[in-house]
Amino acid sequence: MQGSAERALGVHRVVAPSGVLPRAALRLDADPAIGPDEVRIAVRRLNLDAASYRQLSESCGGDGDAVRTAVVEIVESRGKMQNPVTGSGGMLIGVVDAVGPESPLGLEVGQRVATLVSLTLTPLRITDGLARWDGRSEQVPAQGTAILFARSIAAVLPDDLPDAVSLAVLDVCGAPAATARVVERAAARSVVVLGGAGKSGSLSLAAARAAGATELTGLVRDEAEAAALRASGLADRVVVADATDPLAVAAAVGTPADVTVVCVDVPGAEHGAVLATADGGTVVFFSMATSFSAAALGAEGMAADVTMLVGNGYTPGHAAMALDLYRSVSGVRALIDPRVHA
Amino acid sequence: MQGSAERALGVHRVVAPSGVLPRAALRLDADPAIGPDEVRIAVRRLNLDAASYRQLSESCGGDGDAVRTAVVEIVESRGKMQNPVTGSGGMLIGVVDAVGPESPLGLEVGQRVATLVSLTLTPLRITDGLARWDGRSEQVPAQGTAILFARSIAAVLPDDLPDAVSLAVLDVCGAPAATARVVERAAARSVVVLGGAGKSGSLSLAAARAAGATELTGLVRDEAEAAALRASGLADRVVVADATDPLAVAAAVGTPADVTVVCVDVPGAEHGAVLATADGGTVVFFSMATSFSAAALGAEGMAADVTMLVGNGYTPGHAAMALDLYRSVSGVRALIDPRVHA
Repeated sequence: MQGSAERALGVHRVVAPSGVLPRAALRLDADPAIGPDEVRIAVRRLNLDAASYRQLSESCGGDGDAVRTAVVEIVESRGKMQNPVTGSGGMLIGVVDAVGPESPLGLEVGQRVATLVSLTLTPLRITDGLARWDGRSEQVPAQGTAILFARSIAAVLPDDLPDAVSLAVLDVCGAPAATARVVERAAARSVVVLGGAGKSGSLSLAAARAAGATELTGLVRDEAEAAALRASGLADRVVVADATDPLAVAAAVGTPADVTVVCVDVPGAEHGAVLATADGGTVVFFSMATSFSAAALGAEGMAADVTMLVGNGYTPGHAAMALDLYRSVSGVRALIDPRVHA
Repeated sequence: MQGSAERALGVHRVVAPSGVLPRAALRLDADPAIGPDEVRIAVRRLNLDAASYRQLSESCGGDGDAVRTAVVEIVESRGKMQNPVTGSGGMLIGVVDAVGPESPLGLEVGQRVATLVSLTLTPLRITDGLARWDGRSEQVPAQGTAILFARSIAAVLPDDLPDAVSLAVLDVCGAPAATARVVERAAARSVVVLGGAGKSGSLSLAAARAAGATELTGLVRDEAEAAALRASGLADRVVVADATDPLAVAAAVGTPADVTVVCVDVPGAEHGAVLATADGGTVVFFSMATSFSAAALGAEGMAADVTMLVGNGYTPGHAAMALDLYRSVSGVRALIDPRVHA
């Protein structure tokens, strides 16, 4: 790899240990002076990863001041907000403050942005001691600076939507973009979405429709979700089954689909997804609860000739596509809005 | 799902608990009387999964008689050989004994076969008490019967190759078949194989070449493997790097490839594989040590627009293709033969 490719990943900001990627680093250089291919963000708010916040709060016995002190100390010592116990970070919101002349991100000074890469690899300096945060929520008002590398992802927050809505949509924007791509490439007609009434599920159904699919099935866990999904109009057919019960999924889906998208965040959905998919079809796993070996061995054990994709959270244009689906499809809004704590 | 589809998966052989797939069952019905879509195998040998054998041997303090008794009792009580502690099984070798008139597997009575689906889902009855086994190896001479369902996989053992060679090749036959399919579909020219000197790696290199790839790079861990892979002629270029060090992999590979195939059986190869792959390219993960979340989050964190596939052990025709590559490519033989305990 050339030096510029390493720079693009932020390797030049790694202080220790040398030779690792920023996510694996113990300490990053968070100097606010930017290189020619970097972008500086004036930080407004951190959204801590839920697991990270819970661990910090529990280890501090719920003492908000102690939690605040712990976060400040982590950022000072590591140059990034990565919980040393959970390993997780979160994301941040801010305003573009400076753009290096060689940055490929297309950002302009003054734009409000959310980072779509993790805080675990983002150089961060806090300048206000998090004084406006009571330590009692993972939403952290903050002042300071963060650095984006050439290979980072930041989405401009639109002015026509509440930030809470934009963040909820951007949080899952990889799913609809990847679903659309798979449906287009395979010229798929039938699509099943496990967890079709959730954020990523509803966006994936809308994306599949926009990409040309004509037989959309949404599988949900109970009648309440089924009623909401039916009312949304996003699916042609709504079925109820436990996604972790392979035979129940297969029975509910009936004729296997060209493409199955897994958006349920529970372990054990792999075999049902395989059975829901026709020979020669494709399964896209978006759930972080997916087990690699369960998927691989399950398909082999059932002699299932299916292509299985690890859902990549990044597809070019994913943020804009997801926000556009939210704006243009009322059924998406109907399912996502109740989940937004605006 | 219709009754016939459930039958094809062997659900009718599940005794307890009801409504699960055979792999998840506590007990299967191993009755040697076959249904119209089933095949009966006269068992000759069991190959226990290495992890299962180790656990049994350790729990019995290395007492071979106790290990034998334990395996006999597991098969009697469960109707299959699935270690209750490790959950794993193994495979078996036998002779086709009876073929139901509606079996789609294409087998004929008298053929010697190896099952390519796991013992964890194969109804099995032992009739000799494993009397010829000393309990000191995972290779178990056995007499009894096993049942194949409509959706099972069994490979006919060729007469021109030693069984040990056939089993070594069949053990990894999913990798070359899937590699060939990805290379063909993407019309890929450049392919990198991490772990190119191993069984699945060498077959994948040969399959990529046969599928039209013209720039083959094999990445190996040390100079001894590099010398062996160079001598085999399977790769156009051989590089040495630690597959778990992403920047080392990227530096060794140089220009990213259209397709990267991961055949190293160690955790932590996900990020290196992503960096070795060009934007728009494909990574195929064959290592069971692959972490789903490391792959998904790694690609997102590096803004890498790569398609990531869960290596499916089953592709139609995979067994015949792998055996043909072994027969026709001397470099494959040169790398696999030393690994076969013939």
